[in-house]
Amino acid sequence: MQHETQTTRNNDGLFAVGSPVTHWSVKTSNPVQYEIRACENLLDPENSTILEDAPGTGRRRFVVTDRVVDSLYGERIRAYFEHHGVEHQVLVLDDGETHKSVGAVLKVTEALDAFGVDRRREPVIAFGGGVLMDIVGFAASLYRRSTPFIRIPTTLIGLVDAGVGAKTGVNHNGHKNRLGTYFPADRTLLDRSFLATLDERHISNGLAEILKIALIKDARLFDLLEQHGADVLHTKLQSAAASGPTPADVPVDQRLAARGLHLDPATEVVERAIQGMLEELQPNLWEKVLERVVDYGHTFSPTIEMHALPALLHGEAVAIDMALTTVMAEHRGLVSTYQRDRILEVMARLGLPVWHPLCTPERLGEALRDTVRHRDGKQRLPLPVGIGSAVFVNDVTEAELGSAAEALAGLVAGVSR
Amino acid sequence: MQHETQTTRNNDGLFAVGSPVTHWSVKTSNPVQYEIRACENLLDPENSTILEDAPGTGRRRFVVTDRVVDSLYGERIRAYFEHHGVEHQVLVLDDGETHKSVGAVLKVTEALDAFGVDRRREPVIAFGGGVLMDIVGFAASLYRRSTPFIRIPTTLIGLVDAGVGAKTGVNHNGHKNRLGTYFPADRTLLDRSFLATLDERHISNGLAEILKIALIKDARLFDLLEQHGADVLHTKLQSAAASGPTPADVPVDQRLAARGLHLDPATEVVERAIQGMLEELQPNLWEKVLERVVDYGHTFSPTIEMHALPALLHGEAVAIDMALTTVMAEHRGLVSTYQRDRILEVMARLGLPVWHPLCTPERLGEALRDTVRHRDGKQRLPLPVGIGSAVFVNDVTEAELGSAAEALAGLVAGVSR
Repeated sequence: MQHETQTTRNNDGLFAVGSPVTHWSVKTSNPVQYEIRACENLLDPENSTILEDAPGTGRRRFVVTDRVVDSLYGERIRAYFEHHGVEHQVLVLDDGETHKSVGAVLKVTEALDAFGVDRRREPVIAFGGGVLMDIVGFAASLYRRSTPFIRIPTTLIGLVDAGVGAKTGVNHNGHKNRLGTYFPADRTLLDRSFLATLDERHISNGLAEILKIALIKDARLFDLLEQHGADVLHTKLQSAAASGPTPADVPVDQRLAARGLHLDPATEVVERAIQGMLEELQPNLWEKVLERVVDYGHTFSPTIEMHALPALLHGEAVAIDMALTTVMAEHRGLVSTYQRDRILEVMARLGLPVWHPLCTPERLGEALRDTVRHRDGKQRLPLPVGIGSAVFVNDVTEAELGSAAEALAGLVAGVSR
Repeated sequence: MQHETQTTRNNDGLFAVGSPVTHWSVKTSNPVQYEIRACENLLDPENSTILEDAPGTGRRRFVVTDRVVDSLYGERIRAYFEHHGVEHQVLVLDDGETHKSVGAVLKVTEALDAFGVDRRREPVIAFGGGVLMDIVGFAASLYRRSTPFIRIPTTLIGLVDAGVGAKTGVNHNGHKNRLGTYFPADRTLLDRSFLATLDERHISNGLAEILKIALIKDARLFDLLEQHGADVLHTKLQSAAASGPTPADVPVDQRLAARGLHLDPATEVVERAIQGMLEELQPNLWEKVLERVVDYGHTFSPTIEMHALPALLHGEAVAIDMALTTVMAEHRGLVSTYQRDRILEVMARLGLPVWHPLCTPERLGEALRDTVRHRDGKQRLPLPVGIGSAVFVNDVTEAELGSAAEALAGLVAGVSR
């Protein structure tokens, strides 16, 4: 049953002052379904995947992207819709975390007014990274109280993180993602060939979120990153695309066997990360449970990221948070010194920072207090247990933060010496 | 089962260009429950209803109201929280439809940042009419992606309409409620004594939405409005409060019998309106079905209301829309001339306008085109069938609108002659 509904009308208990006279209890539920699909050659004019929910003529599509993606792919994007005879408009937003604002959301909604979209039927298409998808998803969720949208991530963090979940949002009043909604795209189409035009720093940015999944729940994924992380970074996850698809005339079992037995590391890394993320998100898509292992690396990083803007990318701030909490876990005996060193070493191989001067006890304490508000009055702080598991703690003190930050600073100085 | 969850991972069908390589299908559902309760003497310091979800000490509440309500009840509101030892802040917004803007929403969220509320635990309390509740609900839904809130309507339209459903929102870019969310308050507390300080025009404003429910689905409610509407308007629905609660020492069965058999008209009018509204909303809270009888009176009125601002109240624009569509229904033979006259006569008794100079064929055509976008490419226009029933039509032409508007103008001129 999709809707569970019940109305209770109660005419009892009428007369004491302030007691209920009549009450109605409304009970229902909102079924949500969405799809994430790995694809190839999305912008090939012969590929109709982007438009497969728009059969027939008279089609119209509103497209949003950012300046960087537009400069790299704008021509191909427009040519794609022209080839298919689809009336379209491409809105180009400023890129980067500093433009993740209410103003950008309103710009999208006003352009939607001018273009005109039929409600619930003409999905908005977002080409871009995590920031762009969060903005467009937010705008779509608000426009006429919900307009469908499709995500086509062009960055690794978009592919494994922002494009996988249900969260939309923007920064406001100096706070990271302070305003937002839960509103997954109807479809997210993953095409790793977009990653070829990213610089390595943005690949590292996405690898941070992949490492997060490894640390909290997937030791095999950690091993893959340890062995192949540097290679995955340098090849920008193009290995699968480079080797090309197996020809269609090879029998299915051979194709599957070939793929199943020799899944290339880049593909396995991405698929395990998405699978792990979804396993955590799906039972808790609206975050009614605030103890979330996927919040690992997201306790101190929102404050660090916002204060450091635009110096740190999101994944970089997350890596610093994970390095700090790895040291905290080591101090508590949850992670061995050997495991701690493996973790910090993998971060280095993935091109991630592990330290920032903003990691003072005062700033970390401030960050923790805001996170406590965000987690309903408790710390609910995930700490790694070994590699591939996590535990929640609620008793972290500013002194503990200070000694972890100091120890981490020492390790960093030791490494760089 | 509260969550229906399923992840599908499909490694089949891998190799054709553009075909799926791997896909995940996420399926879940968001259970929602909320309560609407009739209460008395809510601001009596001895009455703990407003705070009943906040036991113990250290309680904090963020309250939002508007200038008019603050001038009438602000002192009692502050005294109430002081009496209960609850740390609180009262944010006072500008009142009226012209201030139903994104700016007002951001003002609420920034004040929430300054006050600090624990996520998911400290409900924001909204005292006010439909506009205020829509703004506060919108802000609460966005703040940290959802913060609970409580509605305490102080107007009749708030009591029977805005306070009953799940919709929040603000006007934007010249369009009525263009941005918004589906986010019901956890609790709506109805205290009709607030209505005593409304002027009659604002009582009429709420009676328009009650009349809507009567016309589309409740002939008994129409009869009540026909017989008692003028009295309900003039007494501002204070009849029940005036007669006072039955003493608690009268046996329960006698109390119920006394009440059940002699339910005063104002109480029955309000309760039937809420009951009717909820019956329609509950199975379709997220408006996945766009043929909604409760959209009656809301096809042309959004455009008329926005163009006439601030001349027309929401309910007045709805009344004009209902008058026009009643004449259309008469022209189509769905409503008899006698029924049409009864309907227009009741509108007059309720103090509602039935005509506005903006009802030109061009403006009405423009309004219909925007509504068609809002209803996914179809008119889905509810028209009354007799009194107490409705049908949806999709074939309205500008010529039909013109002749209905002309006939309505003639009737109005005839009445006022």
